[in-house]
Amino acid sequence: MEGLFAPFLLSGAEGQLADAARVEVNGTPIAFTTDSFVVRPLQFPGGSIGELAINGTVNDLAVSGARPAALAVTFVLEEGLSSSVLEAEVRAMRKALARAGVPIVAGDTKVVERGKADGMYITTAGIGTPIPGVQIDARNVRPGDKVLLSGPVGDHGITILLAREELDLEADLTSDTRPVLPLVEALAAEAAPGLVWMRDPTRGGVATALNELARDCGLCAEISEEEIMIRDEVRGACELLGLDPLHIANEGQFLAVVSPEYAQIALNALQLAEGGKDARMIGEICEQPASTVVVHTRYRGSRIVDMLVGDPLPRIC
Amino acid sequence: MEGLFAPFLLSGAEGQLADAARVEVNGTPIAFTTDSFVVRPLQFPGGSIGELAINGTVNDLAVSGARPAALAVTFVLEEGLSSSVLEAEVRAMRKALARAGVPIVAGDTKVVERGKADGMYITTAGIGTPIPGVQIDARNVRPGDKVLLSGPVGDHGITILLAREELDLEADLTSDTRPVLPLVEALAAEAAPGLVWMRDPTRGGVATALNELARDCGLCAEISEEEIMIRDEVRGACELLGLDPLHIANEGQFLAVVSPEYAQIALNALQLAEGGKDARMIGEICEQPASTVVVHTRYRGSRIVDMLVGDPLPRIC
Repeated sequence: MEGLFAPFLLSGAEGQLADAARVEVNGTPIAFTTDSFVVRPLQFPGGSIGELAINGTVNDLAVSGARPAALAVTFVLEEGLSSSVLEAEVRAMRKALARAGVPIVAGDTKVVERGKADGMYITTAGIGTPIPGVQIDARNVRPGDKVLLSGPVGDHGITILLAREELDLEADLTSDTRPVLPLVEALAAEAAPGLVWMRDPTRGGVATALNELARDCGLCAEISEEEIMIRDEVRGACELLGLDPLHIANEGQFLAVVSPEYAQIALNALQLAEGGKDARMIGEICEQPASTVVVHTRYRGSRIVDMLVGDPLPRIC
Repeated sequence: MEGLFAPFLLSGAEGQLADAARVEVNGTPIAFTTDSFVVRPLQFPGGSIGELAINGTVNDLAVSGARPAALAVTFVLEEGLSSSVLEAEVRAMRKALARAGVPIVAGDTKVVERGKADGMYITTAGIGTPIPGVQIDARNVRPGDKVLLSGPVGDHGITILLAREELDLEADLTSDTRPVLPLVEALAAEAAPGLVWMRDPTRGGVATALNELARDCGLCAEISEEEIMIRDEVRGACELLGLDPLHIANEGQFLAVVSPEYAQIALNALQLAEGGKDARMIGEICEQPASTVVVHTRYRGSRIVDMLVGDPLPRIC
């Protein structure tokens, strides 16, 4: 979105592209977001396109500091798609909606010819209301703030890669797709005044999300490799394929920056919440090097990690 | 949406699928809608997919009785799409946004492989606020209410059909794509208390929109063929192809049902507004036959017109 689209189309982006826009409607602040899902294959260990489409938009709202109020969905369906595949996705979406506690209120379907649309593409849009007391803004991040991560990284991206069966690799791994809303709510309930920034590290992974943060606040995000949970299966696949796990997509994790006085409270809140036991404090914000992400390796070295440029794993969501 | 999706996914649809859902967010009523656009070809006389994607969502909000407040957009782009084609659509969208007076605040892009997505698919979602004094509900339609139509029908559908060049037909015809918001505002300004129902007759045309109305209010929409403007080019193409102009899609028209005491005021308001000179009173609501659309032909006969079942013109929007 940032090259051609943002400058031409987006209003009020001001150099920052959040996961959800904040608009005032008749004086009421509304969070508003949208995403298209084109994941291939449609079903994969741990989830499917329908579940991803609901969780993805719920999560974009959640990490912008908003509670989802309603979703809208459109399907682009390939002619000849089996009704059982479609019905399975509709059921998966219903389940994900119930889990996140949000309704779909509007929708549309289009049908395109055989050979187009890989079965289906799904687009979801969502509106939400601010979680009381939560103000997310990268420009308020300060040196000394702590960086928290909700759980292990890379599960989704590597699961999709393996599910394509183009590689002769197998692993006992499932996508991490889930709504992060309950974790965000738990964090906000205990540490809202100290919560400065959140982002779900989807496409481009933790490295890209933190680079966007570093750019937007002009500071350095210094993280410790040792504190970042990476499953052996993810680490192994990444080593074989020459990928950095920090660039791999996640669909059920989020990063948070919390002021130092609230950092431990925030971490405890996350770890005590359901699905949050693997949350870790992975680093902190420093002055220098400006607008940079530095990773301290487990061998006492350090390296600069860039944004993902050019996607080695297209269509992971 | 009505077969599998509505019962499974939509909340509160209650048998009525409006163009935009109405939700309460922190006590503020918000209209919320979404549509995917897969029109082929991407550019056609009088418009293009980008313009259509903006106008379509603006119009869904307008005919639900809402002023658009913000849009969100996603693109599914085919790998290898020329940047000039993409830029042309982005520019067309900007122009349509300016015309409708609404900003895009959020967006997403996905890229799919060559051969998929026909260049691009665009999905737009929109939120809006109720136009003061306007209450749209088919259940409030009463016998004696008048049916108004904003202009000639069939221009968009036939334009697309001819633009595909699969038929050896040529005509000097352009799509009617435009925001109907100014017309809706003009109508509401003069006749809001009498305005009972609106719909933009897109896929399935005037016949389908009125059949949905007849079903939802349980009454008969009786319309006069003579009062419905159909350009010679549209009529000619329909005769050759065995199509009913009342089933052909429009992208810049809307139908309104107005109580008898406001009908003439409403018609005057439309005709005096820019782009409204071709508005007509095309019929009225009767008791019987229940849930039916009856067309009085110019030869003093009458016929029942059904919803469009099975689309003879796929991918017109």
